[in-house]
Amino acid sequence: MSLATSSRIPEAAIRRLPVYLRVLDELQQADVEIVSSAELAVRTGFSPEQIRKDLAYFGAFGTRGVGYETAALGQEIRRILGLSAGVRAALVGAGHLGTALARHSLAKDKGVRIVAIFDNDPAKFGRNIDGVIVRPLADLAAAGRRLDVQIGILTVPATAAQAVAEQLVAAGCEALLNFSPVKLDVPPHVFVQNIDLTMELQSLAYYTSVRREPETEADKPE
Amino acid sequence: MSLATSSRIPEAAIRRLPVYLRVLDELQQADVEIVSSAELAVRTGFSPEQIRKDLAYFGAFGTRGVGYETAALGQEIRRILGLSAGVRAALVGAGHLGTALARHSLAKDKGVRIVAIFDNDPAKFGRNIDGVIVRPLADLAAAGRRLDVQIGILTVPATAAQAVAEQLVAAGCEALLNFSPVKLDVPPHVFVQNIDLTMELQSLAYYTSVRREPETEADKPE
Repeated sequence: MSLATSSRIPEAAIRRLPVYLRVLDELQQADVEIVSSAELAVRTGFSPEQIRKDLAYFGAFGTRGVGYETAALGQEIRRILGLSAGVRAALVGAGHLGTALARHSLAKDKGVRIVAIFDNDPAKFGRNIDGVIVRPLADLAAAGRRLDVQIGILTVPATAAQAVAEQLVAAGCEALLNFSPVKLDVPPHVFVQNIDLTMELQSLAYYTSVRREPETEADKPE
Repeated sequence: MSLATSSRIPEAAIRRLPVYLRVLDELQQADVEIVSSAELAVRTGFSPEQIRKDLAYFGAFGTRGVGYETAALGQEIRRILGLSAGVRAALVGAGHLGTALARHSLAKDKGVRIVAIFDNDPAKFGRNIDGVIVRPLADLAAAGRRLDVQIGILTVPATAAQAVAEQLVAAGCEALLNFSPVKLDVPPHVFVQNIDLTMELQSLAYYTSVRREPETEADKPE
């Protein structure tokens, strides 16, 4: 069971790994060979304890009083995430958000590549987004597993999301990144990460002063 | 101290409140007046225990064996988040991602409204995104607090992000939604939520089979 260790890594730690990876890549480009958890803390905003705990999940303990080797740790995080093998993604919904995601993903080599883009608007068929051609949604079902994609990205209206999710799963996707404001119903082996940009803004409102009740006379300074 | 209770709500619970709100709004539209934590669990994907705990933070306990009043609970969540007062946001970076966000936010009344959009590309000045005109970035500094914005959204390249963050804070923003892959340095009273779409894809890779090591001969079934 080669997955025995890594499959126990909690979801929150997995989501922090790409942050460590970005910092390690920056350090490596600056020819920094060793980094302490304290330095990683300054650069990521996580605590040194959090970082040591996260990295210990997959056996990266560093050297006491010295630190972690930037190149080796980066390589190990890539391996853990599956980025060294390279992951292929299909994107459905070539609107502004879909186009932004495709450009992001295609611009740099980050281990995940959007290899196919679908839409149901004939006006968008044939559009070239940094080298990937927008194809009719019907092609997704037809191509199915021949696409060899592991990740599906949904930037479609809420009404279309469930049907699109089913087509992505049928095509072999094991993880979905869902920007549609609906809870997708998928088989247990499929992992769904939801990002709702409206909700991100709504929860941010909590941290502003608009929610604060007006001061009463008694609260005011003399 | 009117903030005494609500300021103790943990960040993770705050991020779930908009999810409850969406479901409560859907139920209200379907004329459902009462909802149980079990039903909320089915519709949100969170556990009933989690939901009861989250809602108890601000004193919403429901009625045992009956449930929560959908309208009253929705109204209370809006108040807690500050959405009933209405929050104003400024967006910097009118590319594909910025345009998608502005359209999302402007299309529906979700309590947060993007009231100003800035870019430094003269080709984009004057562009109308669903009624909001793209203005030169220099206007942000000049207008400053007259914009009366509480939230700032950054969809700018990494190299520009820190300077833009400082201008948004100077304009009065107390919360930033940062899509740039940099850790922003802001005063302690400013809350930053980072969303890095490349990292979202990278962490999803973990949940696919590409990272699994090839089976050894010994692992294979006879």
